[in-house]
Amino acid sequence: MRTGIWLVGGRGSVATTTITGAAAMRAGLAPAYGCVTELPAFSSIGLPGFDELVFGGHDVVQTDLVKRAEELAAAGVFPRNLPEAVREDLMAADAEILPCADGDASSTQAMVAEALVADINDFRRRNNLERVVVVNVSSTEAPIRKVPAHDSLAALREALAQGQSVLPSSSLFAYAAFLADCPFVDFTPSPGARIPALDELARERGLPYAGSDGKTGETLVKSTLAPMFAHRALRVKSWHGTNVLGGGDGANLADPERVISKSISKAMVLEAILKYQVEGGVHIHNLVDMGDWKTAWDHVTFEGFLGTRMTMQFIWQGCDSSLAAPLVLDLARLVAVAHREGVSGPMPELAFFFKDPVGTDEHELERQYIMLTDWAEGLQAKG
Amino acid sequence: MRTGIWLVGGRGSVATTTITGAAAMRAGLAPAYGCVTELPAFSSIGLPGFDELVFGGHDVVQTDLVKRAEELAAAGVFPRNLPEAVREDLMAADAEILPCADGDASSTQAMVAEALVADINDFRRRNNLERVVVVNVSSTEAPIRKVPAHDSLAALREALAQGQSVLPSSSLFAYAAFLADCPFVDFTPSPGARIPALDELARERGLPYAGSDGKTGETLVKSTLAPMFAHRALRVKSWHGTNVLGGGDGANLADPERVISKSISKAMVLEAILKYQVEGGVHIHNLVDMGDWKTAWDHVTFEGFLGTRMTMQFIWQGCDSSLAAPLVLDLARLVAVAHREGVSGPMPELAFFFKDPVGTDEHELERQYIMLTDWAEGLQAKG
Amino acid sequence: MRTGIWLVGGRGSVATTTITGAAAMRAGLAPAYGCVTELPAFSSIGLPGFDELVFGGHDVVQTDLVKRAEELAAAGVFPRNLPEAVREDLMAADAEILPCADGDASSTQAMVAEALVADINDFRRRNNLERVVVVNVSSTEAPIRKVPAHDSLAALREALAQGQSVLPSSSLFAYAAFLADCPFVDFTPSPGARIPALDELARERGLPYAGSDGKTGETLVKSTLAPMFAHRALRVKSWHGTNVLGGGDGANLADPERVISKSISKAMVLEAILKYQVEGGVHIHNLVDMGDWKTAWDHVTFEGFLGTRMTMQFIWQGCDSSLAAPLVLDLARLVAVAHREGVSGPMPELAFFFKDPVGTDEHELERQYIMLTDWAEGLQAKG
Amino acid sequence: MRTGIWLVGGRGSVATTTITGAAAMRAGLAPAYGCVTELPAFSSIGLPGFDELVFGGHDVVQTDLVKRAEELAAAGVFPRNLPEAVREDLMAADAEILPCADGDASSTQAMVAEALVADINDFRRRNNLERVVVVNVSSTEAPIRKVPAHDSLAALREALAQGQSVLPSSSLFAYAAFLADCPFVDFTPSPGARIPALDELARERGLPYAGSDGKTGETLVKSTLAPMFAHRALRVKSWHGTNVLGGGDGANLADPERVISKSISKAMVLEAILKYQVEGGVHIHNLVDMGDWKTAWDHVTFEGFLGTRMTMQFIWQGCDSSLAAPLVLDLARLVAVAHREGVSGPMPELAFFFKDPVGTDEHELERQYIMLTDWAEGLQAKG
Repeated sequence: MRTGIWLVGGRGSVATTTITGAAAMRAGLAPAYGCVTELPAFSSIGLPGFDELVFGGHDVVQTDLVKRAEELAAAGVFPRNLPEAVREDLMAADAEILPCADGDASSTQAMVAEALVADINDFRRRNNLERVVVVNVSSTEAPIRKVPAHDSLAALREALAQGQSVLPSSSLFAYAAFLADCPFVDFTPSPGARIPALDELARERGLPYAGSDGKTGETLVKSTLAPMFAHRALRVKSWHGTNVLGGGDGANLADPERVISKSISKAMVLEAILKYQVEGGVHIHNLVDMGDWKTAWDHVTFEGFLGTRMTMQFIWQGCDSSLAAPLVLDLARLVAVAHREGVSGPMPELAFFFKDPVGTDEHELERQYIMLTDWAEGLQAKG
Repeated sequence: MRTGIWLVGGRGSVATTTITGAAAMRAGLAPAYGCVTELPAFSSIGLPGFDELVFGGHDVVQTDLVKRAEELAAAGVFPRNLPEAVREDLMAADAEILPCADGDASSTQAMVAEALVADINDFRRRNNLERVVVVNVSSTEAPIRKVPAHDSLAALREALAQGQSVLPSSSLFAYAAFLADCPFVDFTPSPGARIPALDELARERGLPYAGSDGKTGETLVKSTLAPMFAHRALRVKSWHGTNVLGGGDGANLADPERVISKSISKAMVLEAILKYQVEGGVHIHNLVDMGDWKTAWDHVTFEGFLGTRMTMQFIWQGCDSSLAAPLVLDLARLVAVAHREGVSGPMPELAFFFKDPVGTDEHELERQYIMLTDWAEGLQAKG
Repeated sequence: MRTGIWLVGGRGSVATTTITGAAAMRAGLAPAYGCVTELPAFSSIGLPGFDELVFGGHDVVQTDLVKRAEELAAAGVFPRNLPEAVREDLMAADAEILPCADGDASSTQAMVAEALVADINDFRRRNNLERVVVVNVSSTEAPIRKVPAHDSLAALREALAQGQSVLPSSSLFAYAAFLADCPFVDFTPSPGARIPALDELARERGLPYAGSDGKTGETLVKSTLAPMFAHRALRVKSWHGTNVLGGGDGANLADPERVISKSISKAMVLEAILKYQVEGGVHIHNLVDMGDWKTAWDHVTFEGFLGTRMTMQFIWQGCDSSLAAPLVLDLARLVAVAHREGVSGPMPELAFFFKDPVGTDEHELERQYIMLTDWAEGLQAKG
Repeated sequence: MRTGIWLVGGRGSVATTTITGAAAMRAGLAPAYGCVTELPAFSSIGLPGFDELVFGGHDVVQTDLVKRAEELAAAGVFPRNLPEAVREDLMAADAEILPCADGDASSTQAMVAEALVADINDFRRRNNLERVVVVNVSSTEAPIRKVPAHDSLAALREALAQGQSVLPSSSLFAYAAFLADCPFVDFTPSPGARIPALDELARERGLPYAGSDGKTGETLVKSTLAPMFAHRALRVKSWHGTNVLGGGDGANLADPERVISKSISKAMVLEAILKYQVEGGVHIHNLVDMGDWKTAWDHVTFEGFLGTRMTMQFIWQGCDSSLAAPLVLDLARLVAVAHREGVSGPMPELAFFFKDPVGTDEHELERQYIMLTDWAEGLQAKG
């Protein structure tokens, strides 16, 4: 099943790590650590192999993938020698990464979308791909303002036909993906496909989509620990989280507008699991010196039997791109299978991967994992 | 359903907190935090109410429960004013706590067992109880040496009839519990009912039993976090745990013989979940100054995508007796229901409460919780 | 040496803990932990004894000291039984705490100052005191805007004579203290006596003053650890600090204006010691649930030999009022001695107690301690 | 001042890092981070320059320095490219590292010492060195058993003359160093020169010596923080330390005999500073996975004003060899200066570098630093 992965933000840290890693695993240069789809539970559902994946994408950045990979290797995101070892794969993918087509100020969103569709279709044809999955790994956008054109596909089509700019960038990519008959995955907290008009479009064309906001670090741990407090009836009184990180993501999230999207998706997890309001918040501080190595400190106070107060703290020191990249591969592979199987609309079965999953309120990590493996088992039984 | 709870180690910290807490909740003086059985999932299975619980037990300690409760309140285990507020309940329970019948050096184990059975039967009759659940909350014993008399009930009966001493103390109590037609719960890592001969006896008399070793702190967190690493395919390279604690438990576990039982049950969790060997161990240090407030530091190293190394640490600061006591109530109530329903033999459905659960290899906390709630749902459906 | 301690903010948490603690120590009910002046180094400089201290002050709060002490005891700031045990002392002090004289909107600052002076003089006379030390323990003010009237005593006098309001509240109290011939200590980061006009006044009247901003928690540790990095030539790359706290201070510092004063005094320590700019900042989050129990997490990255990167983290869990109160006693006692000895103007010898010490740039804790003990030794030699 | 540094354990991790680092700094390839002697305070005392240092030593290990350096670079102890960049220096040093002369079972300690002296003298002559400093960086030995031959130089000489083996290995090297007219530094907790007979020898020949046990990680922090508690009169109730580390040191310290020497020198610091006994201990666990990256968790409980309990914890994540190596250079350079200046006997001025300093009871890091800089200033004044 030759499968294309079209990365919006194709030269970013996550994309570069994804492409480098896929090449490394294809070449047998690295273990499959971090790849959920390489667990035994997913061995018989007909996933595209690492040697069947072809990468392309859009990015405004010009620095080529080899150079980006060298930067990341120098920062410790993956071994030093990898960029050289997979140089040809990186160059091949780099040749498939196009500048975004929105350069011309006079272009309407409709025209931009058309150009994006053409890019994706060309990529599919050129590489002789059975299907292409579009994955958004670009920078987090500020929260969206709703406009009537989002409410239905008809309204959206009309607005675009009139030359209006009604979609945030992530949603424009989702729109183009669907027009090009591609499943769409939003790995960021940006609006993406989560607009009624786009949901309608996906269903109309029989396309699955998944999102939002990859669950890679502090929130991953939170969605693992909160059920323990809930099911042991321990009453959480406060949960404070501080994240320090540098890299592009650190700088991006230092923007108070953009961080809102992130903080919203981070905060919802706790109350969705505990079913009551908990004091405290999630704070993100840009610390250039940390680079891609995010460190999170979470401080939890809780009351046990007879109101006795106790605390739990955790310190998570993880490499963000390294945690995200294998999930991008997992999602692209799983969504490709779903597409093959005719799944249409949002995929709650993939909640395991997201801070703010579409189509479900389930935030407990382990229950999300059971949803995922149950789905895989169902496929297998059918297959 | 008037239910007796017979506590082996009835004047220990866990027992005292259990009895004080049950009285406080009966009187509406405290929230039900920490009580799993007070969650909605268990509201319709006919649990005995807090006002239907009657406490008794055995202990070699002479200090009365009021004084013990005052000591614990002074140490912050529960609010200062509680012992005074529930003084009568404490005195009533204290009157039901008997010295262990093994004083006389010439007594055989058979004779001691007979005396224990008589004590329990008297307690049931005197208090007009429908049933009595025996719970072992005494000190951890050293690991057991197997003898042929453990292999079958017939062999055990013969050995005891010959006046041999073949059972460790915890197992002698389990034996007596079964002879007195009582379900048995082992909250410690001691052998208790986990001897083939005793399993046979429990089944013969149609009695449920549960254990071993209440999962209250570091191991609770471990059994919550390890599945996250497993299901995200993150490769755990080392997991080091250090516990500092004082109190009776600190001193007891400073004994290198006894700590072995504890360490074994603590260590098994990780490998049972991850399915591979992980470097590191669990270390317990007695620090008198900490009292009942156990602090655990766990340091985990793991490899993610492409072998990138990351770490997670957690610091758990909990009050051991306060974490254990509500589980004792939960277990006694659930086992009482099981007894009513005719359950016989080991109860894997209660694995959620234990470090080393009988009758199952399931160590993942959330799956254990699903086992428990599925069982409760089944009862409800039947009821 | 009967010595008055006039507390601006006399019913706040720090003041209440100070008064309760002095009474407890006088009565032999508590050890002198936390009291620097009780160390052997200060035993022969003629400090006023705890039984020679008399408390009074100003506050807008009406809740009496007994009630405030009970609240603090309930929150764990000191033992439960203390308020009752020192009830009479608390009532006596409470009777000496007056409302601030600035109620009347038509009053000028000159008139308010006059009223404050009268209050202090009455207190001294009524209690037959040798001297009174005024200590500001009220809420942190926003940073000050400089006006020409601050530049010299003459300019200040003229502005006040014209009915102008040119002094922030803390400085008005310092002004009144000096007019009443009292030494002044600023335990907060507010401007207090740090205005050229007030410095001139203090020197003119031969009065010592000290400040600013008691060094009690995270900054105390910082000023202890930073010299280690400096003198071992380890290059600090980032130092991030997060503080979570509730109580009055938590709420107060959640005010973005007021927190500026605090953050400035917290930040300067690091660069003063290291002599180079370090990335990172100090963040303060209000978490009501924490009460007076401040928890700080500091994360430090540094480079060692050949640029190798390492990290150090610390977690400080302290009770703010409990850390501050003994220092208030120390400062009042030491400043009383200085006054007796004829010291005039700012006291750099007391830098040990402050985040932003007047009269010196020395921020290293241990060097500050040497300055303090050298001064005490000098007094002794002279005495 | 051409100065030889003769490293006992010349191919160990510390020695390899020292030699690599000196070469890197000589070549201007690395900043002088971690080098105390490069601070301004030491700029005018006539230290030998990095280009005046020549390395040699003894080791039983055969793996050459280039290979050892590559291993350390791979483990992250220093940058990957360094071993190649300073290859010639490493090869030159490697050529000066000799096997220990104790191979022959029939050799007496007197004969071995003679051979060692010859090796050192040859090294000095061959390289045309003004002086040679011998530094012990070999594995920690078990504590020593005293024998009468240690009590005086005469007794020692007689025992050796009779063919007795009375000296532990580290002391035999110190003996040889002194016979070869070299100053001696013990960077380990082994006995080294701390034997009355050897002290006598050092003084007789006018040689300075320094030790013991380089203070690089947890103890460094401890000796920095403990004075804060002492001088703020905060009463430390318990101080628990856990160290996890791998590498050669981890394995070596897993040996219960050897770890005793280490634990003794680690434990003394606290009580020497606080002047009272504190509960708790220092625990060292071998965790191969950690390699040279030692992580220490220290948990401190203390009581403040009115007995209020608080805690401080720190987590130190450092690279042991990287922390030790610059101190080896510092010590060799400083001792070389002392030798030039005619210092004889133990050097308490160098306490700043050691867990168990010879010639002084001062353990407070900052006071040790003042001792060191005062000494440097004295030299400068004289010079």
